[in-house]
Parts: sequence; C-alpha cells; structure tokens
Amino acid sequence: MFFHTQELQFSATPEKPDAVYARKLQEVLGGQYGEISVAMQYMFQAWNMHVPGKYRDLVFGIGAEEFGHVEMLATMISQLLEKAPLGVAEAAVQDDPTVAAVVGGTDVQQAIVAGAGARPVDSNGNPWQGSYVTASGNLLADFTANANAEMQGRVQVARLYHMTDDPGVREMLAFLLARDTMHQNQWLRAIEELKADGLEQLPVPSNFPQGKEHTEVSYQYLNFSDGGQAGDGPWAHGPSLDGNGEHSYHDGPTTSAPMPPPTRPDARFYGTTDLPNAVEKVAGAAQDALNRE
Amino acid sequence: MFFHTQELQFSATPEKPDAVYARKLQEVLGGQYGEISVAMQYMFQAWNMHVPGKYRDLVFGIGAEEFGHVEMLATMISQLLEKAPLGVAEAAVQDDPTVAAVVGGTDVQQAIVAGAGARPVDSNGNPWQGSYVTASGNLLADFTANANAEMQGRVQVARLYHMTDDPGVREMLAFLLARDTMHQNQWLRAIEELKADGLEQLPVPSNFPQGKEHTEVSYQYLNFSDGGQAGDGPWAHGPSLDGNGEHSYHDGPTTSAPMPPPTRPDARFYGTTDLPNAVEKVAGAAQDALNRE
Amino acid sequence: MFFHTQELQFSATPEKPDAVYARKLQEVLGGQYGEISVAMQYMFQAWNMHVPGKYRDLVFGIGAEEFGHVEMLATMISQLLEKAPLGVAEAAVQDDPTVAAVVGGTDVQQAIVAGAGARPVDSNGNPWQGSYVTASGNLLADFTANANAEMQGRVQVARLYHMTDDPGVREMLAFLLARDTMHQNQWLRAIEELKADGLEQLPVPSNFPQGKEHTEVSYQYLNFSDGGQAGDGPWAHGPSLDGNGEHSYHDGPTTSAPMPPPTRPDARFYGTTDLPNAVEKVAGAAQDALNRE
Amino acid sequence: MFFHTQELQFSATPEKPDAVYARKLQEVLGGQYGEISVAMQYMFQAWNMHVPGKYRDLVFGIGAEEFGHVEMLATMISQLLEKAPLGVAEAAVQDDPTVAAVVGGTDVQQAIVAGAGARPVDSNGNPWQGSYVTASGNLLADFTANANAEMQGRVQVARLYHMTDDPGVREMLAFLLARDTMHQNQWLRAIEELKADGLEQLPVPSNFPQGKEHTEVSYQYLNFSDGGQAGDGPWAHGPSLDGNGEHSYHDGPTTSAPMPPPTRPDARFYGTTDLPNAVEKVAGAAQDALNRE
Amino acid sequence: MFFHTQELQFSATPEKPDAVYARKLQEVLGGQYGEISVAMQYMFQAWNMHVPGKYRDLVFGIGAEEFGHVEMLATMISQLLEKAPLGVAEAAVQDDPTVAAVVGGTDVQQAIVAGAGARPVDSNGNPWQGSYVTASGNLLADFTANANAEMQGRVQVARLYHMTDDPGVREMLAFLLARDTMHQNQWLRAIEELKADGLEQLPVPSNFPQGKEHTEVSYQYLNFSDGGQAGDGPWAHGPSLDGNGEHSYHDGPTTSAPMPPPTRPDARFYGTTDLPNAVEKVAGAAQDALNRE
Amino acid sequence: MFFHTQELQFSATPEKPDAVYARKLQEVLGGQYGEISVAMQYMFQAWNMHVPGKYRDLVFGIGAEEFGHVEMLATMISQLLEKAPLGVAEAAVQDDPTVAAVVGGTDVQQAIVAGAGARPVDSNGNPWQGSYVTASGNLLADFTANANAEMQGRVQVARLYHMTDDPGVREMLAFLLARDTMHQNQWLRAIEELKADGLEQLPVPSNFPQGKEHTEVSYQYLNFSDGGQAGDGPWAHGPSLDGNGEHSYHDGPTTSAPMPPPTRPDARFYGTTDLPNAVEKVAGAAQDALNRE
Repeated sequence: MFFHTQELQFSATPEKPDAVYARKLQEVLGGQYGEISVAMQYMFQAWNMHVPGKYRDLVFGIGAEEFGHVEMLATMISQLLEKAPLGVAEAAVQDDPTVAAVVGGTDVQQAIVAGAGARPVDSNGNPWQGSYVTASGNLLADFTANANAEMQGRVQVARLYHMTDDPGVREMLAFLLARDTMHQNQWLRAIEELKADGLEQLPVPSNFPQGKEHTEVSYQYLNFSDGGQAGDGPWAHGPSLDGNGEHSYHDGPTTSAPMPPPTRPDARFYGTTDLPNAVEKVAGAAQDALNRE
Repeated sequence: MFFHTQELQFSATPEKPDAVYARKLQEVLGGQYGEISVAMQYMFQAWNMHVPGKYRDLVFGIGAEEFGHVEMLATMISQLLEKAPLGVAEAAVQDDPTVAAVVGGTDVQQAIVAGAGARPVDSNGNPWQGSYVTASGNLLADFTANANAEMQGRVQVARLYHMTDDPGVREMLAFLLARDTMHQNQWLRAIEELKADGLEQLPVPSNFPQGKEHTEVSYQYLNFSDGGQAGDGPWAHGPSLDGNGEHSYHDGPTTSAPMPPPTRPDARFYGTTDLPNAVEKVAGAAQDALNRE
Repeated sequence: MFFHTQELQFSATPEKPDAVYARKLQEVLGGQYGEISVAMQYMFQAWNMHVPGKYRDLVFGIGAEEFGHVEMLATMISQLLEKAPLGVAEAAVQDDPTVAAVVGGTDVQQAIVAGAGARPVDSNGNPWQGSYVTASGNLLADFTANANAEMQGRVQVARLYHMTDDPGVREMLAFLLARDTMHQNQWLRAIEELKADGLEQLPVPSNFPQGKEHTEVSYQYLNFSDGGQAGDGPWAHGPSLDGNGEHSYHDGPTTSAPMPPPTRPDARFYGTTDLPNAVEKVAGAAQDALNRE
Repeated sequence: MFFHTQELQFSATPEKPDAVYARKLQEVLGGQYGEISVAMQYMFQAWNMHVPGKYRDLVFGIGAEEFGHVEMLATMISQLLEKAPLGVAEAAVQDDPTVAAVVGGTDVQQAIVAGAGARPVDSNGNPWQGSYVTASGNLLADFTANANAEMQGRVQVARLYHMTDDPGVREMLAFLLARDTMHQNQWLRAIEELKADGLEQLPVPSNFPQGKEHTEVSYQYLNFSDGGQAGDGPWAHGPSLDGNGEHSYHDGPTTSAPMPPPTRPDARFYGTTDLPNAVEKVAGAAQDALNRE
Repeated sequence: MFFHTQELQFSATPEKPDAVYARKLQEVLGGQYGEISVAMQYMFQAWNMHVPGKYRDLVFGIGAEEFGHVEMLATMISQLLEKAPLGVAEAAVQDDPTVAAVVGGTDVQQAIVAGAGARPVDSNGNPWQGSYVTASGNLLADFTANANAEMQGRVQVARLYHMTDDPGVREMLAFLLARDTMHQNQWLRAIEELKADGLEQLPVPSNFPQGKEHTEVSYQYLNFSDGGQAGDGPWAHGPSLDGNGEHSYHDGPTTSAPMPPPTRPDARFYGTTDLPNAVEKVAGAAQDALNRE
Repeated sequence: MFFHTQELQFSATPEKPDAVYARKLQEVLGGQYGEISVAMQYMFQAWNMHVPGKYRDLVFGIGAEEFGHVEMLATMISQLLEKAPLGVAEAAVQDDPTVAAVVGGTDVQQAIVAGAGARPVDSNGNPWQGSYVTASGNLLADFTANANAEMQGRVQVARLYHMTDDPGVREMLAFLLARDTMHQNQWLRAIEELKADGLEQLPVPSNFPQGKEHTEVSYQYLNFSDGGQAGDGPWAHGPSLDGNGEHSYHDGPTTSAPMPPPTRPDARFYGTTDLPNAVEKVAGAAQDALNRE
C-alpha cells in the first residue's frame, strides 16, 4: 500500500515562469529515463522478485521515493507554466524577440490539453510507455538496468542544469543530482553484494549450463568493421572478466554457414514463387487446388 | 558503408516447422532487447561518439555483427513458418489437440501480413521502436546500457532454449548464447578501460561540479518503505563505491518542503478555480475580459 | 511524498496457478482503464489543480489508494504465473487438451521477458501509455473522465469475475468491484458539488462567453443518418439539460458552405497541380525559379 | 454506408495563412479528444450496440456529423498552411522576429511529409490511435465517455479560440463550440433516458449481483493522503448517489492483508532466488536438471 | 459532409459464430492495410489536394465507399463474436479440444474491453494509427501508395478467405476482393492519366531540376551484396524507365568519402571525449568553466 | 552477414552547424519514409522471399546500400548539432532574433537525450517503428510498396533541399536524390520483369481464383461522393488495365443489404440490452443466472 503526504521531499519552486523550460523538464518526468520510469521499474521488480529480504526491501524503498520525485517535477512544471502565454500576439513578438523563442519552443499540448499543466510525456510530447520498464526477475541483469537508468537520468539532469539560470529550478535539480549519485552507487553496490552472496555471477544468467553454449566463440572478439584499434583493447586479449575464458581477436567471423534456400509456404498465402514458370504442370495443380479450396 | 554477403555467421535451420515457436523467437529478433535493438544501438552510439579510436572501432565492430544476428533469426523464423497451418480446420483440431495449441499460439500477423514470414515486431506483435535505443554520448552510461542489453538478451535466449527441443534451433541459440557471453564481458571490460583511461568515473557524469549538487543527501539511503532489512546492506553503511562519500541509513526522508499553493493560470485556459465563488467582483471582471477577448 | 508499507489492502492470493488468466488480468492492471491509468490520472489532476482544499484532497486521497490496487494486481498475477509452463511439451498436449489452451492463451512475454512476472501492459501486450491520462485542469470535465474510467473499469472487472472460478481471485475482484462502486459514486457526487459550489456548470467550460458561440445551432439535433427513432428522444425536443436552450430535430444539417478551392502551396513542396498544363508560361517561370533555387 | 457531398457544414476559411496555428488546430483534428476520436468512437459504439432503435439511431446520427467536422478542420488547416514558409531564411528572420516564431512553432511534418497539408496527428505530431476509442457495449459507461469527450473537446476549442484573432478561424470555432454544447447536453440527457427506461442504473454495471461484491467497503471514503478537507464532502457522509448505501469517512484503509511470499517459478526462467545459497544440495539438483534439459 | 444510411453495401452475416476468426478479421479492419487505413488515406489526400476536378472527385468517391467497408467488417466481427465464450471452462476443454483452440486464439480485449465487439485495432491488438496514412500532395507518389495499399489489402483478404469455410464470411470477402480488384485497376489507371495529362512524370517529383542532382549515379545499379544474378536484370543495363538515362552495373559503390572526425559538442552535454586525458590543461579549463556555469 | 567499413558512400559534411535543420533531417533518417525504413524493408523482403536468384539478389543489394545512407544522415546530423546551443540565453535572443528561431525550432531530445547527436526518430520526435516495414511475400505488391517508398522519400528530400542553403548539405542531398531516381526506376522495372517472367500479374494476387470473387462489381466505379467529373476518367469507361474486364460508372452502390439486427452476447458481458425492459421474465432469469455464476 502507498500513503501520500502533502509535502515535497525538497523545495520545487521556480523564481519565475518559463514555459520553454517547462517543456524541457518533461524529459526527466515522463521520458524514457525520467522519474516515472524508475518509479515503475523498481516497483515491478519488487512485485516480480523471487527473493525476500534486503534486496526486495531496497527496491521497494527506493521505488517509493521516486514517485515523490515525479511529484516534485510535476509541481515544478505547473509553476513554470503559470504565466504561460496563449501564443497569439503578433505585436508582442514584434516588440520582443524573446517572445518568438517562447512561442516556438513551448509544448502546445501543455497549453491546449492540460491548461498549463504537467503531462505524463517526454520533452517531444511522446507519451510515457510501459516498455520503458525492465523487470526480468534476474536481479543482476535488472540492477544493471537500474544503474544504467540512474546514469542516463543523471546525465540528462546535468544537461538540464545548464539550460536554465533560475535559482529555484537549479536548487531542485541539485537535489535530484545528489539522489542520482546515491542511487548509482547503490545499484552498483547491490550488484557486488549479489555476487558476494553467491546468488548470481557473470555471465548472466550464470547457471545456464556452460556445456550447452558454443564456448569456442564465447571469448572471441570478432571485428565486423575495418577499424583495427579495437584489437588492442583488453576485450581482445587476456583473461575474460567472468573468469571463464581467454579473449582472442579476429578480423571478421570465425564461423560461417550457407544461407538456407528460400521457403515455399502453402500456395494459399499467395507469396511469389518461381514455380508457375519453372514447373507449369505442378503450378496447374496448385491452381486447381486453390480453385477447389 | 555496409556490405552484405549471402552467408550466415552460423547455421540457422530447424529440424521441423513450429509456428508457435516462430512467434516466440520474434522476441529476440524485434523485442526491446532483441537483435535489432543492439544492432541499432551500437551503430547510433558510434555515429554520436566524440572519441575516435578503440572505443568507436569496438562499437562499429560489434554493431555490424549484430545485424548478422538479426538475419539469422529472421531466416530461422521463416523456416519455422514454412509449414504454418492456415488456421482453419475444426476436424483436425478434434483429432489432434496439438493443433489446438498451434492455432491458439501462433502470431496471426506472421500468416496474414507476412505470408509465413518474419516481422520486425516482438513476440506479442508490438512493432520494434526507436525508443529502445540508448545513445547518450556519455560512454560509461552507454556501455552500462549495453551490458544490460546483453544480459537481458542472454536471459531471454536461455529461457527460449528450454522452450524447444528442436536440435537445429538449439544449435543456433547455443551460438547466440556464446556471443552474448562475449559481449557481456566486453562491455563490462570497456567500462573498466574507460575508468583506467581517465575518460569517465563514477558517478556519471563524473565532471559535473560536485559543489553544485546537494552533497548532504548524496550518500544517504532513504527508506520510503517499511521493510527494514535493506538497512543492513553495504549501500546503507560504509564508504561509497565512487570513493566520494560515506553511506548512512534513514527511515524516510531527511528533508522536506511545503507543497507550493495551486497555480492560477490565465482565465482563458478555463481551468476550474475557486475565484468565481470567493471573490465575485474579480470573477466578474475576469468574465468581462473573456467576453471582450 | 509517497510512503510504502509491505502489506496489501486486501488479500490477493489465488487458489491455484492459471497462466491464461494471468494474461487477462493484465487488462485491469495496465490497460486503458486499468489501475495504473486511474492512479496516474488522479495524481496528475492533483498536481495540475488550481483549487486547494477538499477537491484536491479528494483526488490525492483516491489516487494513492489506486497505486495500492496496482500492487494487488501485480502480486496476484505473479502468483498466477508461479507454475507457468515453459510452453514446450508436445507429449503433454497430447495427453491433456487443457495444456493446449494454456499454451495458446498465455502472454508469452510474461514468460520470456518477465520470467513469469507481471508487466505494465494490457491483456494483448500493448504497453501502458501516458495518453490514457486525462487532466485538463477543468474539474467538471475531469471528474466526468474519472466517472467514465471507474465505470469502464468496473465493467471489465465484472467480466473478468465470470472468467474464473478460482475463489481467491474472485475474492480480490469482489473487493475491487466494491471500491469501484464507491469511486463511481464519489466522482458523480463531486460533479454535483462543483455545481453547487458555483465553480462550474454545463456546458463545460461554462464561462466561455455564450455570445461568442453560434447559439442558433447549440440545441439542434442534426441527424446525419437515416434512422428516425432518435427524433423521439428528449435530446430532440424540450428544454436542454444546461437550462440555456430548447432542443429541435432536423434531418441533416441546417447550415452549409461551399468547399473552398484547393490550395496552391509553394512550388518547392512539389505537390501536384494543374498549373503546368493550364498555364504553360507560368509553369515555365515556376520551373525557372526551381532551377535558380 | 456513407455518402459524401462536396460541401462543408459551415464555413472554414481563414482570413490569412498562419502555419503556427495550423499546428495547434491539429489537436482537435487528430488528438485524443479531437474530431477523429469522436467520429470513430460513436461509430464503433453503434456497430457494437445490442439495442436497436433510438439509442443506435442517435449514435449513428452524431457520428456521421463528426466525420464532417474532421473535414472542416482538415480543410481549414490546409488553407492556413497555404503560404507556409519553407523555413530557411536567415535574413528574413533578422528583419522580422515574427518569422522566428513561425520557424520555431510550425509542425515540420506538415511541410516535409504532407507538402503543406493536414495530417491525422495531434499538435505534437503524435499519430491518432485506435486506443482513443471507447466502445464497451455498456451504454451508460459509454455515454459517460462521450460526455467527457465532448467536454474535453469543448475546453480545447475554447482555449484555441483565444489563441487566434483571425475572424475566419474564430467563426468556425464558434460553430464547433455550439455543436459541442449540443452534444454535451445530448449525452447527459441520454444517460437520464437510459435510467428512465430501466436499461441501466448506477453503479455501472448495475446488474452485477450485489451479493458478490464486498459491500462493506462499497461506500467508504478511504483517505490515503493527509489532506483532511475531503472528509467534509458529500462523498464522505450521507446517502450514496446510487441509492444503495451510506458513506463513511476513514483515514487510510479499513482492511489489510499480509503480502504473500515471493514466487518461485521454474528454474529455467533464470530468475534470481536465494535457493543456491540457502539449500546448496537442492540447488545442485536444480543445476543438474538444467544440465539435463 | 458525410451522410450515413443504415444499410450495408453487401451482406455481412456469418453462418455461425467464430471468435478466433473474429480476431483475424481485425487485420483488414484496423491493420496497416485495413479498411480504416484506405478510408482515411483517400480522404486526407482529397483534403490536401491542389487540383480540383476528376482526381479529387475520384479520391472522395472511393474514400467514402471505404468507410462503408469498415462498417461491413465491424458488423461481421460483432456477429462472429455473438456467442464468444467467456474463456473459463476447464471441463469443457477436456471434452472438446476445439474449445482449447478457441480459448487460445481469441482476442481477449474483444471480450474484456468491447464486450464481444469489434475494435479499431489489428489482429494482434495493436491500435490503428495515423501513421498508416500517406498523403503527400504529390499525386503520382500518393496513387502509387494507394495501389500498394489495395494490393497488400487484397493479398490479406485472399489469405483470410482460405482461413474460414463459413459461406457467409466468404460471401463478404468475395465482394471485398472484387472491390479491391477495381481499386487496383483504378489507381494504376489514374497514374497513367496523370502522366498523359502532363501533371507528373518519373522520377517523382519530376520537376526537381535535374541539374541539381548527382546524375552520374542516377542510373547505376550498385550491388552491396554478393549475389551476382541481379546484374543480369533490366535494371542493370539498357535505357531507364523514366527515359532519362542508361543503366550500368557495379559491384559495390562508385564513390566514397572519408568519414568525418568525431564531433566535439559543448562540454555541458557531458559526452565522453578524450580531451581530459590528452590535453589536461584544456580539460582543467573546461572543468573550471563547468564550475562557474 | 554484414561488414562495415569506416568510409561513407559520399561526402556528408555541412559547411556550418544548424540545429534547426538537424531536426528536419531526422525525417529522412527515422521517419515513415526515411532510410531506416527502406533498409529494413528491403532486408525483410529478402529474408521472407520464396524465390532465389535475381530478385533476391536485387533486394539484398539495395538494402545494404540503404544502411549506408542511414549512416550518412546520422553523421551529417551529428555535425549539424556540433555547436547546438544549450537553449538558455535570454540576452542572446534579445540581440539576435535568429537565436529565437533556433531555440524554438530545435529537437530538444537531440540535446537532452543524445547530447547533440542523431536519434532513430522522425522530425517530430516519433520513434521509428517496425510497422513502417512492408514485406508480404508477394513481390508485385512489395515492389509497388518499394516504388512508393522511393517516391515519397525523394519528394521529402527535394523539399528538404530547398530548406537549406548550406552547400555541404545540398551536396549530400543531391547524391541521395540521384540514388532515389535509380531506385524508383529499378522497382518499377522489376515489376515489369515479374510480369514478363510470368510470376505475377494484375490484379494482385493474380492466381486467386477469379470464379470465387464477385466479378460483377470488379470493374464498376461506384461514386460515393457527389463530384461528377470522376465519371469521365479512364477508370469509369473502357477496358480495365488488368485485361480482365470493362469499366462502368455508377452514382453510388449497385448492391445493398439490410444491416443485421444488433447482437445479443452473453449477459455476463454486461452490455446494455433492452431485454430487462421488454421481457421482464426472461430478464429475471438472466439475473438469476448471474447471481448463481
């Protein structure tokens, strides 16, 4: 169960309205790596988890915090939009080029659809979608997904920090940056803990029987492009990180197989084949069959 | 530029047709973590990269291999579908319950739309989409995204391995599992190399000025759920993995702020406010303004 | 801020696994009128609201409950999937036709992607999306959207009730049905309250200046189909519900206007026009312009 | 069947071109609550309807009118775009800031894709989609959806009215506002008629057996947020609108249940469990099984 | 304007219910090449057209017919679903394997969401979307799009014909096949007419100044794959169809250019570069700048 | 298999940065008719093809070239974005209106998400999606789809040519225009070849048994709109292009059928019917059934 309190985790009040920036902030609210994504992702990981205890507590504990960040951003956006212009005003534009930038750079749906409000969409107006969520049940994979989400998110917030000089907005972003720092550390630490607890190892999934995979290509770097410098990296020589093999370098593939012949599905799919031409008699039979069917 | 050869990297021929399995394989062809995703993701990372040399060579080298994996899967799927039933046959179903499973479990668009062919969609028929691609320009973040993609992908291929007993299909999956093993190792090794080269550190992005973030909350574990066991983990005590702080544990937030008052946008957005009621005189004026406008 | 407790609002445990039903339940978890939709919708309405007090408290109060319903459904689904078959087993199908139905009717992504877990998607695997959310800032409109969502949702849950005979599942649905009963009542009551408080009336938005709309067609029922019985309804005669007009009935439109002539955009859009033919000299000039450009 | 006449229901000609406004109008053409949505929604309701007579005639009659509104808007948009600039012209921008606003605020796909034409998308370029349509077969629910659609639509048109001062555009919007007034009245009246005819009541669906729902929570207002003013509303005390119960107010839930233990799906899903650690012997057995499989 | 009559263009009544087939028919109702697509596509082409007269009349005339085909299919689907099973019935499945196929093969949203009704989605439940529509304003391109749509559509209907043996369904499909025959003929004939009228030629757009394109590669077949048989085709030798050139065959490209060096955007985008390493002094300056910003 | 070389097919370097144009170019990279679409479409056609030899070689040969065009565009876009402004700078806007246009007209996700990089999306930020791909297995239909794609693509590139005056950008577009010229010629020529080889004819699919379609309406032009000029075209009189019939012209339909009565699905779908009213006794029985169930 979730309980809500009408307080924010941190101040989220701009010094002045800025409808163009309100649009940009939508990215970290409703974008692929926005706060809705991490809130939902951590919760679904918790609901799908097969281990009780510290890992599930951790995911629940952070997931609930992230819903509060969704709230901070939505609140900030609606304030940035409080004085949003309606967008008509040829005369005003003539007087002040800044107005032109605003007219051009706002999210028109924040105005027309939400009446100067926040929306569950990204900065280009694409609706948030469930496919942003990763929750596979394999915790090492999922915590790696979480680390990535927190990294991408922190990169985006850092970029947004430089796109405004409003002290109120920057305060909130400085807070979110700090929480992202924490969450990056935490997911990476949780990955170490999973290994230390013996629950999972590299390569993920680690208990897939090694004898069943084609191990002769499990540690080869196969270079399908012509830039040769990748051959010098630690991924091309020396022991593998998972401790199970030794890397080697190859220009192109070490294996190949002939492409199988084209398929010939049922004639009733009406795909084009060369049969009517090559073997007229058979084709006639096929046509007869179609006629009967 | 890309050059194509009419050979496969590895054999991709089933022993017998299986239209239900053909649908399932779509997941690793056109799903969120399928081969189209990694092929496109690595290529966009290469095109957006700001560093020449080994990292870009690496991303190009793997990306081009992945397009070949797309081809292997599409080829396999079209063969699995070669004898796909049209899906009508009440009598047949009566005789053989297996047919019922097949009728129910196939991707009907593989039949109706592609004429027994592969499609750029996942196992539920959702079209592949560009939002599956991550290419931020920050390599430590992006390589973490890649490691995640390879882990999720290998988990899915491992699951699919157990969903068939066709030796031809299993051969191909055993090959793909091995390549996923390599790629997991490689992206994680590349992350180590980035740090060793001094190009990026934790937390990502590492050169965002630390003085600008609210460092007092950068290492606190704030537990917004009531499960206490997360407080015992290494993310709640001791030094942080990024080397910049010391973790502490807290039940709930350590900061809070009052929620700002509701916004009052322009009356011409026709949002509901309590003004008409509370201050009738002003409301009248607002209505006059609307009438004039 | 949101706080989570590791308890459910009501029991959500099936008596036995049922992977086919787990797919169906996804509809009321992640579908257009599922619990994610109402949870997010009420929260965005609260964040965009322009009135403090009872209405905002109401929306926050219910919205937070709905997140708990998301959790109940996700928990139920993961349990229904606990014994989900992998989906291979020709022999098993031969022995038991029920297995065929299961193989055909399951959501294969719940298996391949989530490892027998719940996902933020609907019963056909379409990801939940932000465009399901309505939050316009006009409360009478938005509460009508909420009443609709609760009605559609309760209809779906009622249908799902008859699609299972598992007592544990039915218990949970019986609880959700009751909460939907409450929420329907509540949004409809809130609409009455808005009118009583003088905050909004029909037609929405009620303070758009009536003098600015074409009131001569504001109360006409214009029948563009040939079924005549609609002419007998209360929407075709007598006073209008908003108290501002009198209905009348008309076969077809009472107004019309000629369609304007086709547009002639800039030649550099390369649209097809009849100019090249009709006025060759001008066309030559246009081509000259293209050549120069 | 549908028959088309090359006339409009009302004049739809702007006084002057305005490419920025052409983009905004897309919202009420191809957005969630645009004219395509209501046209398609009413038609699907008619096609799915289980009652002949006045209700079906009504839905057909209005649906066909709405297709004419789609046409009016598309016609208007293509005229607003007739003089759409190509979007290059640094010098022009220097001379006239208005050009800058236009360059920034236009829908570039209207130019590049449609050659200065209308498109079935919303004002942010999101394609119209079938999931905007609601047609459940339950008429009280569906007519509530329709009332909501007409309200949201009229709010949007009213907002758009204030975003232009072109008399030709305003004329058309004044007409559409009037028709939205009619349609709001009509759907709400049809809801009253459904009840009067005894076809459906509150709560929807009204014939779900009340004995099967958990009626002890059917009329409780459970407040999961800490704003107390909602407790004073008519939804928290007194008789319910559906006539079946009496409301009461509660801080938080009146019921709770322990969260069930985490699930343990088949090992071949490769989810992370604590089994390998806790019970090594069993884990060994599980691994043996994987090896055999 | 559109007027509706409560008649169908052709009989659309199945002999018996078939919920599995009802799902399949959704493809030609709401799929990429279904009837909604062609209806909307032709109408948008008409609204965006720059030529009055026969071409616009043609597009309007067919577009309106297609809306009637949408209606026929929706009507058929709702009848096929009239006896749709609810989908629970373990016992029934045991007795009759056909039930298993039905349970597995139905569209569960037709049941749960639409109450046994048609929906604006394809046979996998993907909602119809506006991006299926092509209306560029260039008629030769658009009529080619139309010819393609009618061909793909007729192929799909032909496949569906063989997937049922219900005489009522086959009657309707036989009618639709005939109309598709007409429409294929018509769009291809209209393309000939456009050329004969001198309105457009190959290559489209034909009045783009030839002097501005790199004509030295306009007629070369560049083979980027290693299959040599394509070199024998009429696209590799002899005069081009547009009458402007002579084809030639080449293994691979005839031109190439070095890949430009990686970009170096503003440091505040936090992309990874090798600057910090290579030129520490500059990097220090860059960091100083970030600190100041 | 695919092999990559770190060279471009043609120079793709702008003379100066232009972030607004970088957004527009996304259309032909990741839009419906962009280079990703044709590259993927040709490849899927090859993988689904049922004919070996020249047709498959052709599709492979062009498809691989198109991936190189994706690369040229992505490379160009990242260079156009190299100096992309961060988007804050009120003072700068005051000094130079051009900046306002830039602020308004850029793709903010290219900045926030990709760090000044290209993305797999169109010019409005809609992600590329698999449903843009057509690969039915019927080659005449698919090559018509290809011809359309090349026409739409060339129209878009021609429009984009006039939207910039950067010589470097225009050079690249002039090259792409030439390749589109080739590909239009080629697909249309391949269609002729298919017919000459006797593999497929009009109408597609040509071997659907003519006796099974309602040939009496296969060549009628049925005009459902009131513009009469379409009756003069060659599609309304004279022999049909497929050589199988003779066209005739008709105002409206030549056939009609009564609309079937509304459906009456199972009461447990809770659709609204008039049964409760009309036949109370039966309704009572139905309600009893619901109560029991």
